[in-house]
Amino acid sequence: MVNFEKYLKILNDQLLRFESGKYPENLHQPVRYFLGLGGKRIRPVLVLMGYELFDSQYEKALHQALAIELFHNFSLIHDDIMDKADLRRGQSTVHKKWNESTAILAGDLMLIKAYELLADAPSKFLPAIFECFNKMAVEVCEGQQMDMDFERADAVEEELYLEMIRKKTSVLLGAALQIGALRAGADAGPAELLYEFGVNIGMAFQMMDDFLDVFGSSEKTGKVEGGDVLNGKKTLLYLHSMNHLSPTEKEQLMEVYLPTCKRTPKERVEVARKLFLRTKSDVYLKQKAKDYYTVGINLLKSIDQSPERLRPLLELAEFLANRDY
Amino acid sequence: MVNFEKYLKILNDQLLRFESGKYPENLHQPVRYFLGLGGKRIRPVLVLMGYELFDSQYEKALHQALAIELFHNFSLIHDDIMDKADLRRGQSTVHKKWNESTAILAGDLMLIKAYELLADAPSKFLPAIFECFNKMAVEVCEGQQMDMDFERADAVEEELYLEMIRKKTSVLLGAALQIGALRAGADAGPAELLYEFGVNIGMAFQMMDDFLDVFGSSEKTGKVEGGDVLNGKKTLLYLHSMNHLSPTEKEQLMEVYLPTCKRTPKERVEVARKLFLRTKSDVYLKQKAKDYYTVGINLLKSIDQSPERLRPLLELAEFLANRDY
Repeated sequence: MVNFEKYLKILNDQLLRFESGKYPENLHQPVRYFLGLGGKRIRPVLVLMGYELFDSQYEKALHQALAIELFHNFSLIHDDIMDKADLRRGQSTVHKKWNESTAILAGDLMLIKAYELLADAPSKFLPAIFECFNKMAVEVCEGQQMDMDFERADAVEEELYLEMIRKKTSVLLGAALQIGALRAGADAGPAELLYEFGVNIGMAFQMMDDFLDVFGSSEKTGKVEGGDVLNGKKTLLYLHSMNHLSPTEKEQLMEVYLPTCKRTPKERVEVARKLFLRTKSDVYLKQKAKDYYTVGINLLKSIDQSPERLRPLLELAEFLANRDY
Repeated sequence: MVNFEKYLKILNDQLLRFESGKYPENLHQPVRYFLGLGGKRIRPVLVLMGYELFDSQYEKALHQALAIELFHNFSLIHDDIMDKADLRRGQSTVHKKWNESTAILAGDLMLIKAYELLADAPSKFLPAIFECFNKMAVEVCEGQQMDMDFERADAVEEELYLEMIRKKTSVLLGAALQIGALRAGADAGPAELLYEFGVNIGMAFQMMDDFLDVFGSSEKTGKVEGGDVLNGKKTLLYLHSMNHLSPTEKEQLMEVYLPTCKRTPKERVEVARKLFLRTKSDVYLKQKAKDYYTVGINLLKSIDQSPERLRPLLELAEFLANRDY
């Protein structure tokens, strides 16, 4: 993935040099701090890749790419407050290092700066770019609220769960690609196909995330093994398994998902893992991820572009949907 | 003020019918609730007035007017969390009625919806409108952070205090007028003059607010008399007075500003009031307000428009800067 790494270097460079402002320091410092924590930078790379499908001067889409990454970071800062998370990428979250008020405000500022960067394009492109971005941004908020609502719910329908991850995660990947395409002057049709490709790959991506959380190696993922189990996060593994377990087993699974569970963390994850395997929920999840992946690939291939131009996106989709870390 | 009331009716009607979305209800309901709490709606009226200075079909600027009001309400919802305020316009704040997470998210959604409405204009107008809006939005965040920083500071320079209220309050009034003008196709020059007029009137407006808090009648303002004193909010009255009091008097003033003060609220406000009168800080504040007002009026009059067209804005400025409620 030659292009990916080239883009990554440029974007990281720009993000580390990004200045939201100077005074008051208590507002702008947290923004710098958070952007300095790093990240996979997949979303801004997607903007540039979406652009390069239709035009070769990807530099023209750099500000839109940064806008997408700032939007993503805005949502992470606010989500961290809501989730009462202490750590992000191994470092203190903004509300822990400073306080909640500053974290709210730093997030707000990043959202505004995202719009500022987004608007830095010839005005003829702005209506379509804004329409795509705004629709996505509303859905990301809705997805986060659904996620919070589901945490308090006993049971969640699979369909609603899928809708939640679509809004919370996938639409941002789709919009990143679409905005890149629109910035390059692509027609509405192919830009929309690219969006749908991104949404489907995003679904597969999120499912692999859920799979790797329980079945991946923490050495490779860099995350706590079974973090979702320990945090009581009911992913598709849980929902599918619950629909196929005996009443006794159900109780076992529910028990290890409770924060009050008396067993060791390792035991709790082990119990969940065994029950997921018993109901073949791992197979179900991987198949589902593969289905989304296949739909996505077919949508991408339906865009009228040379295989040469499509190749980087096919490679990235393969990487996102079939990784083991 | 015939125009003002006409606009107010239209705007209130639109705001009450405004739908940010349907599902999840836990996200969209707080938005409806908060917009239903009412408000003076001065800012969106300013958009329409800014428009009508250059063109008669103010309906064309309705979405930009709503955008400005949504932005204002977004900042109120988030400020209420930061200020730990229980009440807004006599009713529960969003984070009290629901919870903090929902209030953060409902605010985020309102900001996004503000951008959505703002972008609903012919694309040739968008770059200038966005530039004005984004600059203002960043400054409002900076003003809020400065306000929080100052709360923890012992002494604040008057100049920095003025910079804080300029960013926190005044620039939004200026931007409202400027965006209205830009939407009507006004040139950059007069639109900028209108912005500066608004900022100056905004400064006078905020100073009258600070004056009325201590010297106004709660029957007319509908607010707690001396609320700023009781909440330890160090306005220009406090800062000016502190610079002119004897050491003993200073201690008295500082004491009644502390939440731990043992006197009755009424006594605390009475002590502050007496000390402000002793240092003629009331006269100082009113003169300062008048100075800003005069500068604003002169800026407005320098715009090349008929007195007939300028009249509604002159009336509104007079009302905002010289009210007793």
